Amino acid sequence: MKITARAHTNIALIKYWGKRNEQLFLPMNNSISITLDQFYTTTSVTFRDDLKADSFILNGSEMGGQETDKISGFLDLIREKARRNEYAVIDSINNVPTAAGFASSASGFAALAAAATKAIGLNYSGADLSRISRFGSGSACRSIYGGFVEWNKGVRADGTDSFAEQIIDESEWDLSILSVMVESKPKKVLSREGMQRTVKTSAFYSGWLETIDADLNFTREAIQERDFEKLGTVLEHNALKMHATMLGANPPFFYWTGSTLDVMHKVQELRDSGIQAYFTIDAGPNVKVICQPEDERIVKESMQQIQSVRDVFVCHPGPGVSYIGE
Amino acid sequence: MKITARAHTNIALIKYWGKRNEQLFLPMNNSISITLDQFYTTTSVTFRDDLKADSFILNGSEMGGQETDKISGFLDLIREKARRNEYAVIDSINNVPTAAGFASSASGFAALAAAATKAIGLNYSGADLSRISRFGSGSACRSIYGGFVEWNKGVRADGTDSFAEQIIDESEWDLSILSVMVESKPKKVLSREGMQRTVKTSAFYSGWLETIDADLNFTREAIQERDFEKLGTVLEHNALKMHATMLGANPPFFYWTGSTLDVMHKVQELRDSGIQAYFTIDAGPNVKVICQPEDERIVKESMQQIQSVRDVFVCHPGPGVSYIGE
Repeated sequence: MKITARAHTNIALIKYWGKRNEQLFLPMNNSISITLDQFYTTTSVTFRDDLKADSFILNGSEMGGQETDKISGFLDLIREKARRNEYAVIDSINNVPTAAGFASSASGFAALAAAATKAIGLNYSGADLSRISRFGSGSACRSIYGGFVEWNKGVRADGTDSFAEQIIDESEWDLSILSVMVESKPKKVLSREGMQRTVKTSAFYSGWLETIDADLNFTREAIQERDFEKLGTVLEHNALKMHATMLGANPPFFYWTGSTLDVMHKVQELRDSGIQAYFTIDAGPNVKVICQPEDERIVKESMQQIQSVRDVFVCHPGPGVSYIGE
Repeated sequence: MKITARAHTNIALIKYWGKRNEQLFLPMNNSISITLDQFYTTTSVTFRDDLKADSFILNGSEMGGQETDKISGFLDLIREKARRNEYAVIDSINNVPTAAGFASSASGFAALAAAATKAIGLNYSGADLSRISRFGSGSACRSIYGGFVEWNKGVRADGTDSFAEQIIDESEWDLSILSVMVESKPKKVLSREGMQRTVKTSAFYSGWLETIDADLNFTREAIQERDFEKLGTVLEHNALKMHATMLGANPPFFYWTGSTLDVMHKVQELRDSGIQAYFTIDAGPNVKVICQPEDERIVKESMQQIQSVRDVFVCHPGPGVSYIGE
């Protein structure tokens, strides 16, 4: 039976930065994200007993060995859970343009987990789905839910208590999330490698972990109270701290470019002029600016005026995983 | 008797960042600097029994209350040591243009200490002069010596063991230090305030202190071995770590602008192309690039090609305090 699922990408307000177990995708700290309405992956999975291998079609093109191996490895986990061994056809349409500054691994593995578990006959939802999505990409476990989501790191060695939960859904607080794309070159340090190097060598990683619980508490409170200034203050500081840990790694590295700093300064100037806007930055040079919907137009225009900004994409809180055509 | 002394500014390779005692200008960690040949302050001091107050003339203009008060407070220490109470005429020519990206407090207080102690009849040199210069501005204690200099933080509560010493003199290792001036606005957080906030609130300040002894050891070894790659690697990382501590402060702050990052990336590109150049950054947006004299021309040209760079000034290791007209 062919099952089609859709999942949206998410942006972390409190960052996932560092694994305590590489094999099980177990994070060092909880993270909190907003699932986004504009960017998503739609994936169909059909298990068939006449196949000799998995077949992975992305945006209409058959993928080669490397891409398919990663998908097959993930499906092996699901086959093991279901005690079945058929191969699958995976047909995926990725509506997360790299040009918009979001990775597609979160939405991709959340959609794949949802479609594949159902197609193979597992009755997974919520925590089960979140837990297994984690093995494709850590942040995928947050994309199972819509709105504001927290990934609990868990404490068990086997990772069974490491999965995401919804804080409030996408209808409960509307915010504007602007993805500000700047001029850039390919990354020298991939985020996976950067995370590892930071955990192993950074003089500042212990400082990151020591302050994360306070950041999480402030964020949960700000979400419950719909206190945007409180939310913005803590999310911006959390992003700055994540990037600071890289400067303490050995050898040090940084993802910021001149354009990144131009955007950061512009956001702080907006605040100085009374407009509440805050930035967050993932493992790359692009900046996400978060503001309230009533300020979206002026914030977007301010960003577009920066010389080194190439494009600005606007999102709002979006839904969790859904099945299509049912 | 009128005494004239000259002292040169210095650039820290291992940064002074944080005081353990604000009143006694006692630092949390040792720092290592290069005294620079191009920028200096020349100061004459005459103690006279016919004056009702100190008179401070800077670059030919009589200074007002605020500027003179800071100088008088410093001279009070010297008057106390000498058990004399005459006021002084202080005539200072500052050859450290703000436009060149160096603070004049280091050379200014080193020259003032040298001229005033001798004018009042104290026979100070070396450690004595370094120790008292510290009370004008911490980094002034390093400008007493030429070449490569280390300020020992000391351990005594009264600060008597906190003064600088020369590692090697300016003739022993020639390096090129380029001050790369970028477009900027006035600082929002002055360095004194930034230091205090970092020590009090930064999640990363303990990481800074934990790694400083290793940085100091590497730097001393690199200087003794004249190992430029080793020196450059550690000085660049030390600067990145200093700036990282600010991102962990509460509230966080940063001195970098887009232009700062442009210069940082250009320096790393130079290294990728085989030219040994390293950057350091003080509490501001300008960047100092350090290279070997044979690469000075190409490094300078590379910096001048960056769109947001306003000017580039070149220095080499320079001498310590000297008396003029003797």
